[in-house]
Amino acid sequence: MLQTTNQALRSLGVTAPAVVIDEVRARRNIRRMADKARRSGVAFRPHFKTHQSMDVGRWFADAGTDRITVSSAVMAEHFAGAGWRDITLAFLLNPLQAPRLHELAAGLEAAGGGLGVTVASAAALHEALRIAAARIWLKIDTGYGRSGCAWDRPAVLHELAQEAAAAGRLQGLLTHAGHAYAARGVGPLRAIWNETLRRMQTVRDSLSDLPGAGGLLISVGDTPTCSTVDDFTGVDEVRPGNFVFYDLMQLAIGACGERDLAAAVACPVVQVDRERCRLVLHGGAVHLSKEPLTDDRGRSIYGRLGTLRRGADGFGADRVLAEAPLVALSQEHGIVQMDHGAFERLAAGLDVGDLALVWPVHSCLSCDLHREYLTLQGKKLVR
Amino acid sequence: MLQTTNQALRSLGVTAPAVVIDEVRARRNIRRMADKARRSGVAFRPHFKTHQSMDVGRWFADAGTDRITVSSAVMAEHFAGAGWRDITLAFLLNPLQAPRLHELAAGLEAAGGGLGVTVASAAALHEALRIAAARIWLKIDTGYGRSGCAWDRPAVLHELAQEAAAAGRLQGLLTHAGHAYAARGVGPLRAIWNETLRRMQTVRDSLSDLPGAGGLLISVGDTPTCSTVDDFTGVDEVRPGNFVFYDLMQLAIGACGERDLAAAVACPVVQVDRERCRLVLHGGAVHLSKEPLTDDRGRSIYGRLGTLRRGADGFGADRVLAEAPLVALSQEHGIVQMDHGAFERLAAGLDVGDLALVWPVHSCLSCDLHREYLTLQGKKLVR
Repeated sequence: MLQTTNQALRSLGVTAPAVVIDEVRARRNIRRMADKARRSGVAFRPHFKTHQSMDVGRWFADAGTDRITVSSAVMAEHFAGAGWRDITLAFLLNPLQAPRLHELAAGLEAAGGGLGVTVASAAALHEALRIAAARIWLKIDTGYGRSGCAWDRPAVLHELAQEAAAAGRLQGLLTHAGHAYAARGVGPLRAIWNETLRRMQTVRDSLSDLPGAGGLLISVGDTPTCSTVDDFTGVDEVRPGNFVFYDLMQLAIGACGERDLAAAVACPVVQVDRERCRLVLHGGAVHLSKEPLTDDRGRSIYGRLGTLRRGADGFGADRVLAEAPLVALSQEHGIVQMDHGAFERLAAGLDVGDLALVWPVHSCLSCDLHREYLTLQGKKLVR
Repeated sequence: MLQTTNQALRSLGVTAPAVVIDEVRARRNIRRMADKARRSGVAFRPHFKTHQSMDVGRWFADAGTDRITVSSAVMAEHFAGAGWRDITLAFLLNPLQAPRLHELAAGLEAAGGGLGVTVASAAALHEALRIAAARIWLKIDTGYGRSGCAWDRPAVLHELAQEAAAAGRLQGLLTHAGHAYAARGVGPLRAIWNETLRRMQTVRDSLSDLPGAGGLLISVGDTPTCSTVDDFTGVDEVRPGNFVFYDLMQLAIGACGERDLAAAVACPVVQVDRERCRLVLHGGAVHLSKEPLTDDRGRSIYGRLGTLRRGADGFGADRVLAEAPLVALSQEHGIVQMDHGAFERLAAGLDVGDLALVWPVHSCLSCDLHREYLTLQGKKLVR
């Protein structure tokens, strides 16, 4: 079974670890999320940190996307340079980088768009207020516990909102329900979505009397909940990012199906250990990242082998081989450990010099480690 | 205490996550290892995958280094381009990349050096034999269990060694005792060194009757054991790499002291949560890597804050703050969690917009995520 995949990857010219993208699946993922936002009547502002690619950005534009989210000043400048005019930097404003955002914000505004910045402290708000053209979002912590102002501490929120609103600069409230990554299954994910919504609405209601704080927008965004609710009604904007490619983490969470995975890492096989039923891959932490996933045996795994199939118009991504996990990862090496039966069935014909496909645990981190991607149709995508 | 560090990093012009290097410590680490090799009468072939930098490479050259180890064809080409003439690619030969190594090997040989390649299978050996100028090393697994031919399976070893030796191409036996990373303390590390030595000598002895296999060299290399033995006698070559910078992992293993750590990541503080005694840093998996270390409370940590001190000639790295670990890491965020006392003592004056210094768990992976480094003297080092 791994031989078809090997031949496909060879025919694409892969000789070293490389990200391969199933464009058909990725475009379908994009369309599905964009359509859901449209049907719900909410703005779609996908997070581009997952792919960080101009080319993949165009697939979004093809699906009608006209506003995006990024997580760093560099990324904002990068996509602004490629013509994106409406950008939210959904990472707490770093005052040290504020000076470089002045020009960017002014340029985007002049082009008919704008730059959104995110704050959760007086120090950052004061810097944000100095960026004349920036739209200011208050970052709310609705339960994740990572960053932002806690949704249930009205005093802090009031103080910040009051100052931003008085200056006529407060755009809205923004959150990332990252605790959804700890949930499993549609029920718990929808519960987190609903709770996030209630908490954000509670915050908005509590601020509604402030001068200048009427009509605050609510922006939420995480792939697990956005993938599992049927409708986004109740928020003004969604900002998921990972859904363009999904990954084993999202599969484990229940946010996607096997047929939605769109980004893998092709890895050369550098050793076949038939006695121990192992493959040693050139594919390590610098190609996949060390993000672990706990499998049903309680082991940390770092990916699973997958297969490609030959379709009517070239190759397409096919299955995830649950029985072929990467159980260890060092800087350049990945170890695939199978049981005897799986090894015989899957790896019988494989030898050193062949190529294997690895579905990563966290596609955002894996893609970040590569400077270009290759589609299954043989196109190179520049990051 | 964190204020001096903040001011130092500001004076260096840091505004975004950046690797900072203490050149004095790194040069001392290099000299110490080079001197030990010289005193022991063994060749010193440091692994350059940790720093991957031409500039740091020159610090090695200053200490008399004339041969190096790398872990990929790209890295080999890169350092060959910078004038290094004697390079071992200590990663199992990937037959798909063999064609590009022909020219490299020939060029290095013509320049008076050479290219070493590493094999552990018939398929890779046959490719290696076609690279006319390559020196062939057999990769031996002396107990790590990651890759190579098991030291106690003489049949497989014999077959490969026989073929390579008959062609007059077998340079020696190479191992990486990566299981040293699971050891703690000088005693256990020296025991692994001694065991590795015995096993490599056993393999060499078992092959000594083969035609063409007289005088096989023994090459070993891992930072934990190379840092803790006093003398390298018994091998022909050592290839440690991480020791140039060390990191929290090496500190936990007992391979270095706090004063040997030479590479840190400067991170902007983007939120100060006084109620929960936390700092939120712009410093996540894409700046530090998700390599975890288990601390003495059984938690996974991803780094610890550190300090800089002002010395006679500029800034120098100072302490590791055990009480300020990074307990969570997402793509761009790092969370430093302290207890109340530590937070009051260390972070009292700190605010959003300040900079903190993070000692990484695994400096090789953290450095790999950055395109340039900054020394504490303000020099930019290109990767």
